Amino acid sequence: MGRTSDGRERILAAGRRLMEQRGYSALGVAEICQAAGAPKGSFYYFFDSKEALALAVIAEEWAEQRRAWAAILEGPDAPLRKLRALFDSTAATQRSGQSSCGTVSGCLFGNLSLELSNQAEPIRLALQDIFTEQAEMVRTVVEEAVARGDALVADAAGAARAVVAQLEGQVLFAKLYNDTGHLDALWTHCLALVGAQAQAA
Amino acid sequence: MGRTSDGRERILAAGRRLMEQRGYSALGVAEICQAAGAPKGSFYYFFDSKEALALAVIAEEWAEQRRAWAAILEGPDAPLRKLRALFDSTAATQRSGQSSCGTVSGCLFGNLSLELSNQAEPIRLALQDIFTEQAEMVRTVVEEAVARGDALVADAAGAARAVVAQLEGQVLFAKLYNDTGHLDALWTHCLALVGAQAQAA
Repeated sequence: MGRTSDGRERILAAGRRLMEQRGYSALGVAEICQAAGAPKGSFYYFFDSKEALALAVIAEEWAEQRRAWAAILEGPDAPLRKLRALFDSTAATQRSGQSSCGTVSGCLFGNLSLELSNQAEPIRLALQDIFTEQAEMVRTVVEEAVARGDALVADAAGAARAVVAQLEGQVLFAKLYNDTGHLDALWTHCLALVGAQAQAA
Repeated sequence: MGRTSDGRERILAAGRRLMEQRGYSALGVAEICQAAGAPKGSFYYFFDSKEALALAVIAEEWAEQRRAWAAILEGPDAPLRKLRALFDSTAATQRSGQSSCGTVSGCLFGNLSLELSNQAEPIRLALQDIFTEQAEMVRTVVEEAVARGDALVADAAGAARAVVAQLEGQVLFAKLYNDTGHLDALWTHCLALVGAQAQAA
């Protein structure tokens, strides 16, 4: 199995891939280890349980996605341009996933929220933190837009949650219909939700 | 087990309740039969498979919800009032579910879309039909609003999908945070998505 660190990384990567494709409940530890090319015994050397693996997958996925969001939303561009870039990036990620595995796999956090949030409290709390942080990152940019007069919404925090909800809802449709075209109008709807005009971006 | 028809209804009701609480993959036929108070053998008398049960649960749930949506959206009220009543009804359903079982169970169709759509093609197709019909029902009302000058959106079909996406996204948050407060602002965001002013409703 190579170096110890390799084993953990391979189990993590296999867990992430399988969870994106098939959710959490349908997976068994044996299957994850087989996909990772790791002996089953090694799983429990690295992770206490399947739930612990899921928490590690979620943390790693968010660390990576958070870096991408921050690079876009905390950059020097005009606020509405940054929001638009976020949607373009989301759509590009879903299109790339569809090209490589044939189906739109959606948002891992949204998938696990609807599959698991009423069953696994530690996973619920981790996902709550992620969506709270996403909404905060968007709120900051909406407030920048309002300060510049580019957006007119009164409740920036509410509008930011609505933007993230719209993203999750449309990604749900993209996954269900296996059609990333559902993401094409995200920008139009985001402008409406923050009270902005198309020309401002 | 009483009359034959009782057995099918009891298995359906137990399947629906358990699927709302715990999703699809985590359930076994034996557990469903136990919850229904039905012998395991009787399951396969009524249903070919767990997937067949899920399809029956989905069809029954949509038949019921569709009646409720039609009663609201096809009624005589002004179009924006009808949309508002739809959101009030959705929020009331989620609050009532939370009161009775302690947690917000969310939207069965959204839950199964994210858990299953890439794994069970017949379920994917059934859910696609439901969301397509929901978006069509909302589109008709948005077009009525536009015809009266109560809404200004150019693409009524796109706005209707965005409204349903917003509903699914906010219901996802209500489930994840176990807080129906996430549904309070649905109406504000719907008005923004269809290009309407609050006073019009």
